[in-house]
Amino acid sequence: VSRIALDAMGGDHAPSETVAGAVEAASEGIDVVLVGDRDRLGDELRGLGADLPIRHAPETIGMAEDPARAVRAKAGSSIVVCGRMVRDGDVAGFVSAGSTGAAMATAAILVGRVAGVSRPTIASVIPKPSGRHTVVLDAGANPEVKPEHLVEFAMMGSVLAEVYHPVVRARVGLLSNGEERGKGRTLEKEAYALLEAAPIDFIGNVEGRDLASDRVDVIVTDGFTGNVLLKTTEGVAGMVAAMVVGRLSALTESTRREALAALAPLREQLDYENTGGAHLLGVKGVVVIAHGSSTRVSVRNALHVAAEGADRDLVARVTARIGIR
Amino acid sequence: VSRIALDAMGGDHAPSETVAGAVEAASEGIDVVLVGDRDRLGDELRGLGADLPIRHAPETIGMAEDPARAVRAKAGSSIVVCGRMVRDGDVAGFVSAGSTGAAMATAAILVGRVAGVSRPTIASVIPKPSGRHTVVLDAGANPEVKPEHLVEFAMMGSVLAEVYHPVVRARVGLLSNGEERGKGRTLEKEAYALLEAAPIDFIGNVEGRDLASDRVDVIVTDGFTGNVLLKTTEGVAGMVAAMVVGRLSALTESTRREALAALAPLREQLDYENTGGAHLLGVKGVVVIAHGSSTRVSVRNALHVAAEGADRDLVARVTARIGIR
Repeated sequence: VSRIALDAMGGDHAPSETVAGAVEAASEGIDVVLVGDRDRLGDELRGLGADLPIRHAPETIGMAEDPARAVRAKAGSSIVVCGRMVRDGDVAGFVSAGSTGAAMATAAILVGRVAGVSRPTIASVIPKPSGRHTVVLDAGANPEVKPEHLVEFAMMGSVLAEVYHPVVRARVGLLSNGEERGKGRTLEKEAYALLEAAPIDFIGNVEGRDLASDRVDVIVTDGFTGNVLLKTTEGVAGMVAAMVVGRLSALTESTRREALAALAPLREQLDYENTGGAHLLGVKGVVVIAHGSSTRVSVRNALHVAAEGADRDLVARVTARIGIR
Repeated sequence: VSRIALDAMGGDHAPSETVAGAVEAASEGIDVVLVGDRDRLGDELRGLGADLPIRHAPETIGMAEDPARAVRAKAGSSIVVCGRMVRDGDVAGFVSAGSTGAAMATAAILVGRVAGVSRPTIASVIPKPSGRHTVVLDAGANPEVKPEHLVEFAMMGSVLAEVYHPVVRARVGLLSNGEERGKGRTLEKEAYALLEAAPIDFIGNVEGRDLASDRVDVIVTDGFTGNVLLKTTEGVAGMVAAMVVGRLSALTESTRREALAALAPLREQLDYENTGGAHLLGVKGVVVIAHGSSTRVSVRNALHVAAEGADRDLVARVTARIGIR
């Protein structure tokens, strides 16, 4: 199967934006099933003059709830129903813009970890100026890790880079506070030797600025540092873009309009929120976690990302790669 | 005294750029003494038709040497002579673009820690779009820290923000992977309670994107994460700037020239390498660490930063603040 379940009740703008995004994705060939309250989803579909399969789920899990407890207690919640559908083979995976914690707990409890994976990890795919991409992981699932977890991340991130992007063999860098060997905390020093011995193309330490460079395809770090790296990137890109637009206001109206038109494609290129969500790697199904603030565009993009993961056998390839350790 | 010693032999472009930067700073009223090889510095000065006091130091410490060992072994090195001059009260502080490790070791061994400071820390001052600044510390001196060290950083960073910038009372944020209380690693969770109890204006957790926002004046974190934050900021700002310039090439020549002229002031605003160096806080003298790749502009700026620190009694104020715990 390559059908994808959408947690249609998850996210700040659910269900109106989630349903609208699903309708767009379906019109582009994605096989999607909406999971959530039957009546509300039916209303949204009617409003759009569209028809999509619905799997009823009467409950929801809020952002403030304890994820693991809520997942165990609410068998009828939209995210838990998504997880059961993956477990039962009804769908290849699910997309959620709801609580990241609940999505991770659902994946761990219902979908299950790939044999040999001790820590499933969130992988963000960041576009570079060259048109290539950098996979950054862990993006926030595991704030504190051991050196051997970084090796798992490196192997799974390599698969993701090789599956999605025109990379024959992904080059993996270890995020550190300097390029020289021996830089870093105890974590990086111990992980360095393990990464050298792992079946990956390890290029050594890299720095935050390498996110934009073409010398590395996969950057591994703990989930705390990865989260800081990604949020800083978003923040600085937005800041510089705002400063540029501010400066151009000094120009005459027509020159300004021409300059802004020339810069317009950058807006999309730097719009990290709309890249469509991050993969949760290391579980026995395709799981894509979208931004809580996802609009219909982000939801549509996330469904495409999930469908590609299913079509390209992402889970089977991760399983095979982890097996060769 | 408010005289500043310059390690004229430190940095990728020493001594030509260091001497040129010192000559510029001196012409702007900074009282600077060059420290390094008497003959080479004399030659540089003659080439510029300038005259500045020189303190002879026949040796240098290379980037690859073990810092603490080299500082103990090379009593005649330019950085060690700088440290002795601070210790003996000949100068208020020193600036170095040489090995950061050697500058830190010199500060610890010769200048000495302020009573009550267990970990001197490097504080970077980052310009914001609004014209205000954010102090980020630790920027790399201490890759692994304990919660109580973050409290020291917060207090010293508050002094720096209040001394240099128009801030009555600096607002301090703890860098974490989310704003809610309870986010972060064990380090952040334990530090949160200590920061609440400290004599500072603690606003809670902040994220990487807050570097550019006006809601926080001081961001505290460990030296590993701080280094990643700062290098990512540098890298992304440079990347976006390059993408903007690339896009503008699609315009006609005259429109392009107008747009680039309007954007020119941003180049300086985003040029983190030329901000003039970071303060090493918590030692009994003004110590400013400049980028290894410093040009004359960076060296001049760093000397201004150091002279301001001396004029505004930075060290006495840090000492007083740390004493009120």
